[in-house]
Amino acid sequence: MGPVDASPPVVAVDVGGTSIKAGVVSADGAVSRLVRATTPPAGADGKPVVDAVVAVLDGLVAGHPARRAAAVGVVVPGIVDERAGVAVGAENLGWQNVPLRDLLSDRLGCPVVLGHDVRAGGLAEHRTGACRGARNAAFVPVGTGIAAALVLDGRLFAGDGYAGEIGHVDVGGDLPCACGGRGCLETVASAAAVARRYTAASGTRVDGSRDVAARVRAGDPAAVAVWDEALDALSRGLAMLTGIVAPEVIAVGGGFAESADLVIAPLGERLADRLTFHRVPRVVPAELGDRAGCVGAGLLAWELLS
Amino acid sequence: MGPVDASPPVVAVDVGGTSIKAGVVSADGAVSRLVRATTPPAGADGKPVVDAVVAVLDGLVAGHPARRAAAVGVVVPGIVDERAGVAVGAENLGWQNVPLRDLLSDRLGCPVVLGHDVRAGGLAEHRTGACRGARNAAFVPVGTGIAAALVLDGRLFAGDGYAGEIGHVDVGGDLPCACGGRGCLETVASAAAVARRYTAASGTRVDGSRDVAARVRAGDPAAVAVWDEALDALSRGLAMLTGIVAPEVIAVGGGFAESADLVIAPLGERLADRLTFHRVPRVVPAELGDRAGCVGAGLLAWELLS
Repeated sequence: MGPVDASPPVVAVDVGGTSIKAGVVSADGAVSRLVRATTPPAGADGKPVVDAVVAVLDGLVAGHPARRAAAVGVVVPGIVDERAGVAVGAENLGWQNVPLRDLLSDRLGCPVVLGHDVRAGGLAEHRTGACRGARNAAFVPVGTGIAAALVLDGRLFAGDGYAGEIGHVDVGGDLPCACGGRGCLETVASAAAVARRYTAASGTRVDGSRDVAARVRAGDPAAVAVWDEALDALSRGLAMLTGIVAPEVIAVGGGFAESADLVIAPLGERLADRLTFHRVPRVVPAELGDRAGCVGAGLLAWELLS
Repeated sequence: MGPVDASPPVVAVDVGGTSIKAGVVSADGAVSRLVRATTPPAGADGKPVVDAVVAVLDGLVAGHPARRAAAVGVVVPGIVDERAGVAVGAENLGWQNVPLRDLLSDRLGCPVVLGHDVRAGGLAEHRTGACRGARNAAFVPVGTGIAAALVLDGRLFAGDGYAGEIGHVDVGGDLPCACGGRGCLETVASAAAVARRYTAASGTRVDGSRDVAARVRAGDPAAVAVWDEALDALSRGLAMLTGIVAPEVIAVGGGFAESADLVIAPLGERLADRLTFHRVPRVVPAELGDRAGCVGAGLLAWELLS
């Protein structure tokens, strides 16, 4: 055992629709003392979430010799204006224009940085994961929804909070999307859509896309068809991304990519088939799993201190 | 008349598929002494073009008291690696991996910067044209082809030379494209495609998209249908661009946009109709016309000196 480090820790918080994850993050992105709490029902002003985050952090630093954090990185889903520190909106958290950074900083009495969960995950994959060393890269988690975090010319690109919404590009289908549009990539290729569409096609309820993957391996024709359509739509979305921002590497993560053997190589092949004069990106599995948001939040907090 | 400035001028050259334009560019982007020459038949090594550019520049500086340029900016179409100074490839110039920057710098004896015609045009529209003041913007010339120059977080983004290829995103059609793909935006919405498709539909030869625009104004049903499909495809492409990089403003230029009343407002409306939670970009006419590449080349050369 090394000597106990009594300097205040850098703490990261990843606020999701169902759970809040928090932990101590080292300067090189290692997470320790990971704790979880349930996300409270949201209020439009974000107060229940602020209270819950403060409680989780109090618990984390209570056991530390310093009794306080040096800096806190908080990431949330939805539309986030990182420069202003404002959570603009998130479908499953129900808040609107909440100045989360300042609210938390006032309560915690330490510097706070607010980030976007997927973009922070992309920062983490770029610094310590599957996109290391790439000048231009995308991290694409395919879970309940689909989004892309873009690293362009070595810098995380936010587009004032609006960039990377690849889940809602039109891939030519006609299904209605929760966003109000039609034909969005998410309606066919999110992990949730794959499970939902398999159930609709087969009449059999399944427990997520992993369950559909098992049926693909067993040769179930309905599962094979749904999976094929998801890969096809995803490859269309990634081809658009490639044409517009030309990543060298695309790291695919989220629940859908847990079945990596049925996703990564087939997706890379279909993407290559769709491209002509373009530089063909490597499609690889993301490396940090569901810790990516926390690692990224910690790296953002370390940037605040440096 | 002011005093004659005897200091060597900054010179810009825009090499297109049919003509070479060159001129003296001031630090604020004003072009003077614009001259034109015919682009020579291309060789794979780019030598005929190098000779032609040197001849044009010799003519330009011959009349100047300094008899030489302080710096030269050269822009070319196709895939351009600005950092390496290499023209990687261009369909209508036939060269491959030509180190144009160093070839020209050796011949001219002054600093040379190599840029991409559309991206340089985007830089020009951002500094002195329709995208002034925007942090995130796109310049989309719709002519023989369609491309996008992206200004992201205030900087021109090249994607190592591969970014902005919006002419070759799949908008759901089935027409074969010169790039080898199918359904590319260019097959329906370039100025060339609009003219070609009108002729195919009506049996009547036309002289470019301006001619089709005149027939749209006269109520010719075939022209209206072709124009409508072009706007529809363009709005799909711009919606993808918006989802991925979220420009605040999209400046549309090129031959198609010369019929601004039939393009700019209708395109803005269709784009807004396709978007849901996104930030809706302003669609505006580009301001610099066919001087954009030259202005951008000049600004790049000024950057070299500063």
